[in-house]
Order: sequence, then C-alpha cells, then structure tokens
Amino acid sequence: MDWKSLIFGRPMKTRDSESAKLGLWQGLSILAPDALSSVAYGTEAILVVLATAGIGALWYSLPISGVIALLLVFLVLSYRQIVAAYPNGGGAYVIGRDTLGNFPSLLAGAALLVDYTLTVSVSVTAGVAALISAFPSLAPLNVAICVLIVLVLTVINLRGVRESAQLFAGPVYLFILMILIMVAVGLFVPAHHAPALRDYVSPTLPSAVTLLLVLRAFSSGSSALTGVEAISNGVPLFKEPAPRRARMALLLLGIFLGTMFVGTSVIAYRFHIIPNGHVTVLQQLAYHVFGKGIYFYLLSFVTMSILSIAANTSFAGFPQLASLMARDQWMPRMFVARGDRLVYQNGIIVLGSISALLIVIFRGNTESLIPLYAIGVYMSFTIAMVSLVKKRLNEKDLTKGRVSTVIIGVVGAFLTATVVVVAIVTKFTEGAWIVVLAIPALMFAFHRVRAHYISVANQLRLTELDVKPIPSTLTVIVPVASINRMTIATMSYALSMSDQVIAVSVAFNAEQEAKIHARWKQWNPSPHIRLVVLLSQYRSVLRPLLHFVDHFSELTVSKPHLVVLIPELVVPKSWQNILHNHLGIGLQARLIFRKNVVVAMVPYRLEPDTPVKK
Amino acid sequence: MDWKSLIFGRPMKTRDSESAKLGLWQGLSILAPDALSSVAYGTEAILVVLATAGIGALWYSLPISGVIALLLVFLVLSYRQIVAAYPNGGGAYVIGRDTLGNFPSLLAGAALLVDYTLTVSVSVTAGVAALISAFPSLAPLNVAICVLIVLVLTVINLRGVRESAQLFAGPVYLFILMILIMVAVGLFVPAHHAPALRDYVSPTLPSAVTLLLVLRAFSSGSSALTGVEAISNGVPLFKEPAPRRARMALLLLGIFLGTMFVGTSVIAYRFHIIPNGHVTVLQQLAYHVFGKGIYFYLLSFVTMSILSIAANTSFAGFPQLASLMARDQWMPRMFVARGDRLVYQNGIIVLGSISALLIVIFRGNTESLIPLYAIGVYMSFTIAMVSLVKKRLNEKDLTKGRVSTVIIGVVGAFLTATVVVVAIVTKFTEGAWIVVLAIPALMFAFHRVRAHYISVANQLRLTELDVKPIPSTLTVIVPVASINRMTIATMSYALSMSDQVIAVSVAFNAEQEAKIHARWKQWNPSPHIRLVVLLSQYRSVLRPLLHFVDHFSELTVSKPHLVVLIPELVVPKSWQNILHNHLGIGLQARLIFRKNVVVAMVPYRLEPDTPVKK
Repeated sequence: MDWKSLIFGRPMKTRDSESAKLGLWQGLSILAPDALSSVAYGTEAILVVLATAGIGALWYSLPISGVIALLLVFLVLSYRQIVAAYPNGGGAYVIGRDTLGNFPSLLAGAALLVDYTLTVSVSVTAGVAALISAFPSLAPLNVAICVLIVLVLTVINLRGVRESAQLFAGPVYLFILMILIMVAVGLFVPAHHAPALRDYVSPTLPSAVTLLLVLRAFSSGSSALTGVEAISNGVPLFKEPAPRRARMALLLLGIFLGTMFVGTSVIAYRFHIIPNGHVTVLQQLAYHVFGKGIYFYLLSFVTMSILSIAANTSFAGFPQLASLMARDQWMPRMFVARGDRLVYQNGIIVLGSISALLIVIFRGNTESLIPLYAIGVYMSFTIAMVSLVKKRLNEKDLTKGRVSTVIIGVVGAFLTATVVVVAIVTKFTEGAWIVVLAIPALMFAFHRVRAHYISVANQLRLTELDVKPIPSTLTVIVPVASINRMTIATMSYALSMSDQVIAVSVAFNAEQEAKIHARWKQWNPSPHIRLVVLLSQYRSVLRPLLHFVDHFSELTVSKPHLVVLIPELVVPKSWQNILHNHLGIGLQARLIFRKNVVVAMVPYRLEPDTPVKK
Repeated sequence: MDWKSLIFGRPMKTRDSESAKLGLWQGLSILAPDALSSVAYGTEAILVVLATAGIGALWYSLPISGVIALLLVFLVLSYRQIVAAYPNGGGAYVIGRDTLGNFPSLLAGAALLVDYTLTVSVSVTAGVAALISAFPSLAPLNVAICVLIVLVLTVINLRGVRESAQLFAGPVYLFILMILIMVAVGLFVPAHHAPALRDYVSPTLPSAVTLLLVLRAFSSGSSALTGVEAISNGVPLFKEPAPRRARMALLLLGIFLGTMFVGTSVIAYRFHIIPNGHVTVLQQLAYHVFGKGIYFYLLSFVTMSILSIAANTSFAGFPQLASLMARDQWMPRMFVARGDRLVYQNGIIVLGSISALLIVIFRGNTESLIPLYAIGVYMSFTIAMVSLVKKRLNEKDLTKGRVSTVIIGVVGAFLTATVVVVAIVTKFTEGAWIVVLAIPALMFAFHRVRAHYISVANQLRLTELDVKPIPSTLTVIVPVASINRMTIATMSYALSMSDQVIAVSVAFNAEQEAKIHARWKQWNPSPHIRLVVLLSQYRSVLRPLLHFVDHFSELTVSKPHLVVLIPELVVPKSWQNILHNHLGIGLQARLIFRKNVVVAMVPYRLEPDTPVKK
C-alpha cells in the first residue's frame, strides 16, 4: 500500500458507488451540523439586538422566535417538494434554472458557493477561538491550527463522505441530545436562580421598540436557519431511494432544529437571560438548569465541536453544487470528475484551499465575516421559494395541496427576502459589500466559462462524418549537438516517420561550423537527412532553432507539417537534472503556439553512474 | 525595447566580448573593494585581541602589522607569477590542479566558493547595519533591505561588469584617497588630543603577552588581506593584454592596501587608540586627526559604502571560478554558459540566491559569520603558494629569481597555514565548524557531478562512426475522447507517420463502449486505424491509457517503437487552461520513463471565444 492509499484510502470502483453512500442518520450527521450549530448563537443573536432597547424589549424574543420557527416549517415543506422534484440535488440552483431562467439560478448558485466557503472559514475559526479561550497559550498558533483543521477536513472528505459521517456522528447527536434534555429540564425546573427582570439595570436607556428594531432582531435570529438548504444540494449523497431519505432527513432536521431553537428561546426568557460578552446564552442556560458542573463543561465542549463540524457540511454541499453547475458548463469541467474515492475531489480541494486562504488573509480573525453569510443563504431561500411557486403555477393543476404550497411559498419568499434586504442594508458597511461584490463577480465568471465551452464545442464540432484524416508528407527537424548514441536513436525515430529529415546544429563561429560539417560528412548517416548549421551570434541555442522552425514553415511554399524531435536525456536520479540543459522543455513551451508544428521529446535513458577511478 | 532589455540591457554579440572588458582602473574598482574594505576592520581586529592583555600589549600591533604587510608583499609577488602563468584566471584552483592534483585544487575551489558567498552575505549585512545605526527606524526592514541590495547587485552584475565598474569606481577611489590623506596628515599632526597610555585603566588585569595571544592577534589582523586573491580569479575580466593588466592591478592593490593598512596601524598607535564597542578605530582616528567635522562623517559614510561594495567583488570572482570548475566538469554545465550580456549569468544568479538565502536564514544577523570567511581565503593562499613552489621546483631551472620565489612561497605558505590553523582552532565553536563541514560537502558534490558527466559521456560515446540510424516501423497510439476536428487533425499526423495507427478510447461502462464502437464504425476513418476501447472501473482516463501503452510494448513480440500522439487544445487566453483537463502533460510526465516510447502533443489552436447569445 503506497502513501496515497494510506492517507486517502484505496481507490474505489465506479460500480461500488452505492456502497459509498449514506443512510438516513449518517446523512443527517453530515448535512445537519451547519444548521444545528446555529442553535449555539441563534437565540443570542435575537436577544443582543433587543437588549439595546432595554429589558422590556426582551419579551419580543418569543414572537420573533415563533415567526422564525414558522419560516422553518415553510422552508422544510418547500424544500421537501424541491427534493422530490430534483432527485439529483441542486436545490435553489436547479429549480431556479428550470423555472426562472439563468439569472436567478446563477444568483442562487453564486450565493451558495460563497456561503459554503465562508461557512468553512468562519466555523473553523470560531471553533479554534473557543479552543484558544480554554488554552490561551495556543494563541500564537491561531492561524496555523485553523489551516491544519481545514487540511484535515479536506483529507477526511477526500477519503469519502462515509468516513466523515462515522467520525462526526457522535458529537452531532450528543449535541442534539444535550440541548433537548436541557430544554426539557429547563421548562420544569424552578426558576429561582433567575433574577427578576426589574432587578436588572438596563445598559442603555429604554427606548421604544420600533418596527426596524424588530426587523433587525428577526433578521439576526434568522441566521439560525442557515444550513437548512444543504440537504437539498446533497440528495445524491444518500443511498437509494435517495429522495425519500433526503425528505425524511429534512423533516427530522426541521423537528430537531425547531424544537431546539424555540425551546432555547423559551427557557432563555423564562430564566431572564441577558446576553453578555463573556458567557454565551447557551452556557448561561446550562448554568441555570444544571449549575456549573460536568454538564456545563461538557455542553461547552460539545458546542465548540459542533461549530467546527459545521464546516464539514460545506464539504458535502459545495462539491455537489459545483459538479451540477459544471455539468451545465457554468464552472470548469474538472468539478465533474469524481476521484479515486468517488468524491468530487476538485470541489473539495478548491473549497479547502480558498477557505484556508481566507483564514490566512484575515489572520484567523473571521468574526467580521459572520454577519455576511446569512445573506447568501437567504437569497437562495428566496429564489427556491419563488421558483417553487412559479413551478406549481405553471402546472395549472391547482389541487388543494398545491394551493397551500403556493401560499407557503409566497409568504416564505416574502419573509426570506425581508431578511436579505434588512441584512444588506444594516450590515453593508460591516462587510456585506464583500458579498455584494463577490456574487456578481462569480456570475460574470460563470458566463465567461460557458462562453468558452460553447466556443470550443463550435470550433471542434463535425457537422458531417464524411471528413476523414488525410496523411501528408512530414518534415522532421532534429536538433543535434554532437554525433553520439542519443543522436542515432533520435535519428532512427526521425527516419521512421519521414524521409525528409533535417538535422539542425548550432555553431558559435565559422570554425565550429566547418568542423560540424566535416564530421557530418565523415559520418554520412543517410541520404534522407540534410544537415543545416545555424550560426549564433548570441550564444543562445534556443533562439536560432526557433527562428529556423518559424522561417522554415513560412518560406516553404508547400507549408509542410513539421515534427520537431528533441533528444532528451532521462537521468536515473532527479538531482542529476540540474547537470543538463533542458533544451527540449524550453523549445516545446515556445513551439506549442506555432501552427502545424508538433514537438516530441525522444527520451534517452541513462544507466546509473558507475564509480570513476581517478 | 522589451522589459528584459530595459532591466538587463540589450543582448550583446559574442564578437563584442572585448568591448565589454575592463581597463586597469575599472578592473581595480571591481576586484579591489573586498581587499580594501578590510582596512575598515583590520587594525581594529589586532587591537581588540591585544587589548585583552592590557594597554602595554598594544605596542605589539606594530610588529604584527609589519608581518602582515610582509605577507601581503609575498602574496602579491606570488599571485603576479600565478597570473602570468594562467592568463585565463582561476588562481589557487588552477595552479593547484596543475601541480598538486585534484584534492588540493578542489579544496581551494570549495574554500573560495564558500568564501565568496559568505562575503556577499556579510558585507551586505555589515553595510545595512551601519545604515540602520544611522537611521534606527529602518530596523524592522533589516532583512528586506539586505535582500533588496543583493537583488540590485545581482541585476547590476547581470547587466555586465562594466556597468558595476562605472557605478562603484567613485566610492572606491574616494575611500582610498581619504584613508591615505588621513594617514599622511595623521603622521605629522601633533598628537595632543591623545591621552597618555598610563591614563587608561585596563578593562582586564594586565597579563603576560603569550605566543598564543600574538598568534591570535596575527590571525585576526590577517583578515585584512582577504580579497587579494580576487584579481587572480578574475584575469579574463580585463582587456587584452589581460595578464599584464592583472599583474599591474595586483601591484597597485598591494601598494594601496599595504600603505593604508600599515599607515592606519601606525597612526592608531601614535594616537593611543583603544578599540571600544561604540566607535570604530577608523572613526576614532578621523576624530583625532580632523575633529568631528565633515571629514569624520564623510569617512563614516564612504566606509559604509565600501563595505557594501566589497560584496561586488564576489560577483566578479564567483562566476569566473565556477565557470572554470564547470569546464573541468566539477560543477554543473550551466555555469559555463554566458548569457545575453556576456556574463556567466548562472553563477551570478546562484551566488545572489544563496547569499540572500543565508541572510534570510540568519535574519540579517550575520556577524557570527565574519570570523569564518578568513579560513577559506587563507586555505586558498596556502595552496596557491605551495603549488607555486612545486611548479618552480618542477621546472628545475633555478635561476636567482626562481630561488627567491621558492623562499617567498615557503615562508608565505607557512604564515598563511598558521592563520588557517589558529582560526580553525580558536573559532571552531564560534562557527568555524560550518566551514569545516561545508567545504568537504562541496568537494563530495564536485566528485559526484564529475562522475555523472563521465558516465554520460561513456554511455553516449560512439567509438566508430559506422553506426547509422535505422528506420523501423512505428506504431502510433492516439487517445481519442470523441470524434471531432481535433481528432481528425491528430489522426492526420498519425497517418503521416505510420500506417499502423491505434485510436484508444476510454469508456466507463459497457453502454458507453458500444456507443463509441458504433459511432466509429459510422465514421470509418481509414483502414490503417484500429480502434481500441478500454473499460475504466476507476473513472481515470490516464491509468488505463498508461496500462495499455505498457502492455502493448510488452506483449508484442516485435517490440515496436511507439509514438503516442496526444491531441492538446491550445487556448487563446491562459486563464482558459483551467477549463480543460491537461491529459497530455500528465501522460508525457509518466511515459518519459518508458523505453521505446515517444510522446508528442499535437496542438490544436483555438480561436478567441465569440460572444454567445443567450
């Protein structure tokens, strides 16, 4: 077993595809963490906004959480229909493409790709930040640890989704279990720990609860639903029947996420939790419910884990979406190819590289990116719901179920679009402008890529199959430094290809020129080989050769097809390469742009050096 | 004029070599700074050692300077003879090779190459250190400034030696002039500034002046002579008659250096200068002679300049020596080639790169390297002088002049060998071990390089010219993805080379396989082309193709010569390369190690993309 198999696992056959796929609970443990991890900050995001208006405003967290939960229901119902209609995945991108056209679908695609990349950077740095607050001595290694984690995630995902599912299922389900237990106990335990709300001194003067404030709290809290779309993009990761499993996974995700989020918000209100900069709302809750014991620390640890694992969801979603868009020629072809382990390896590698690069550029300080990444997701939500409405309306078969779909879609699209607008407006200067720039830039790139593929296809297409290849007379040019065994081997190849062979030698002065001619005459290899000696005034071998090739094909009336055969030493040890001039590589790199010239290196393999006696 | 010409100057013809060479004073300004700059620290090096034994010991600086001056006379006389005997330069390496054999000459070669590299690093960082003590705010940019200066030196030397001579002659001759004036005035000006020696309190208890102390002072002070060998390596830089100019340059260098060094030592004793860590001995002298005025500051500045310019001497010496050793096959062939500006560009680039790397590794703090680099030079001095003695003795024509040469050589070799031994012993732990490791490592490398060249020559050599190239039947293999214009172009080439063409296609399942066969049958390109469809279980195209090529040449009894022609798209814009799989490059990189297989990429040039209507 070589090192590659050791790290990435043995190559898998195409017909083993099915066995590499996921069951319901495995799939959930891969595709749900991004959404579930939002429970760690969703309620807090609402409370932070409301607290600016004073203690009295905190009550609004309950109806706002309710609306978000309702939106979750709408999203789950809508995406279940999208999954049923598109068993190959693709979510908002695919349904947008089929109902609304290129522009909205590319908008959704770009928004999601940006979002997946940001999710990796932000999740990993958030996890590492938590680790560093526990072990401050690691602080100088911040960026290095982040990049290492991205690298590990990349390798695990290159091994295959099953591997990452096995690795991450534990913390994911432990997190769900612990939050649900805390919510359940928290609803019934006496709230005697909690101070009455009037005991608090509001940090700011109480102000009126305006509509804008409620909208901002709603928009912030709705970050709890990011990640819900991942299942719709990742349908093909499930075992058959994939759509049914994916629909079930969506339902389970909705139930878990909804219960956890609403439950957290409710008990947070019950215990009169106010967000502060030091301890998270979730930790405050654990403290109120169970005290500062083992549960408190375990929950802190598991929360930290789930934040990191959230990054893994992107590694499932990004490559799937990229492969679908590449099939539609909007992205480079390489995203379609599946590697040795049946995963879209180029998507995984590109995602890992770009997110690691973001971490390095922002020096592991990606909190500034957090507000951004709800924007992309909610854009795709909006497009998905509008598309679904359009699709149902197009079908003109408005049974009762369909009518409710349309109503859900319209209300849902209205809510999600609100989040997008509020987020862009309120967070534009905080960094939302990056998303506003990145998405159109990506969409422009998509169009350039497709234009290229269409142009290539047009240029290569054979309209009729009656065009056949026609042999022509080749002229073979062989650069020759001296007459030796390598020259003979190359000349043999040349004569095998054509009886018009030109040996080209470069001399640096007239004396050398005469010498070469004389020795050639003495050798007299074949009547089919003509010798041309070029005189170089500038000590370069490459330039006279290039000139000769150019002028030869220009000056000859018949415009012959040229083959340049370059003798190339193949040394037994790679360090020995620095001992030779690699004329062939330079020549090939330059001649590839010439028309009707083919360059080949004729390798001459050397034996290992024998010890030399002095 | 393109950017390359702008930076490096226009390419020069070989026959213009002579006009690119140097006159006497120009050559001196290139080859002397290394030696002359030693005046800045030579006297100080002696005084520092002596001062440890108390004030009374300082008197010894006069006889020690005298012995060093005598050694300088011996060196100049010896090297003038070496230059006369070896007009192509090479100094200790060449004369050692011709008289003592490989080991001593390679020892001298390695020692000098190491020394030249260290000189660049140390000189540049010393110059920048002086700059930073004047402008402390630049301190954080220390390494960056050093590397920038090395880069500038590299570019200037790639432009040509004349260019660097023009640039550096000013400071060099100004330095000589200022020191000579200072010495002359210093000998006559009343020494009333100087305190009597008894006024000093010795920093350590006075101790006996032991032989070891004198030897150490001598060894330290002899660093003043490093750089004297540069002229002997750089003879070919002079205009014809080069040896005469070089001999004259050596004489002038000896006179200037001797006068400056001895004069400095004498007036330093006259003014009772004691080295201290804050102001250099040279600055103290300038203060005593001229006061703290314009002269003091100008001399400080010019001294700083000469220390930096000393690095430039290495840029003249290293490439010359490397080219000589490469001609003898001890170093890679690339050091022999002269570039567009008639300089040994690879030597210059390698020297610049390694010394910049050293600066980065030592973070611009190369003072620790200063003690090292006398060792290499004095090794080469010793070898040069022993060789000269051997040569004269071999000639068996001992006229009076020759006898004195032998005596000078023997005494000189004894003195220089003393310096080497004392320096290695007393400075071993301070870093001399680096030199002691680096020199044998280089010598080992020289032998490996030569062994390779000899082995290659043996393998390629034709003992008789009656071996001729013989054409054989080629089998041409063409990987085919689909039938399109590119396929036809490649097939035309294939049919031009041979009437045994195999089109190889890769299918991923039986259905695909049947489809390919059907379409091929429909096309029916030529009776000379056979279609083979390979079934890939692993989604890879490369691996089945490699397997096929391997097994084809193995299974066929006739062991045919194979040519693999790979159709390769050449895109009009380089970013478009990421949109295509570059099968050809991967295939070529792997097939180059196969015997009897030649790989060629057949370029198919695409036109620019045309805008696509939606």
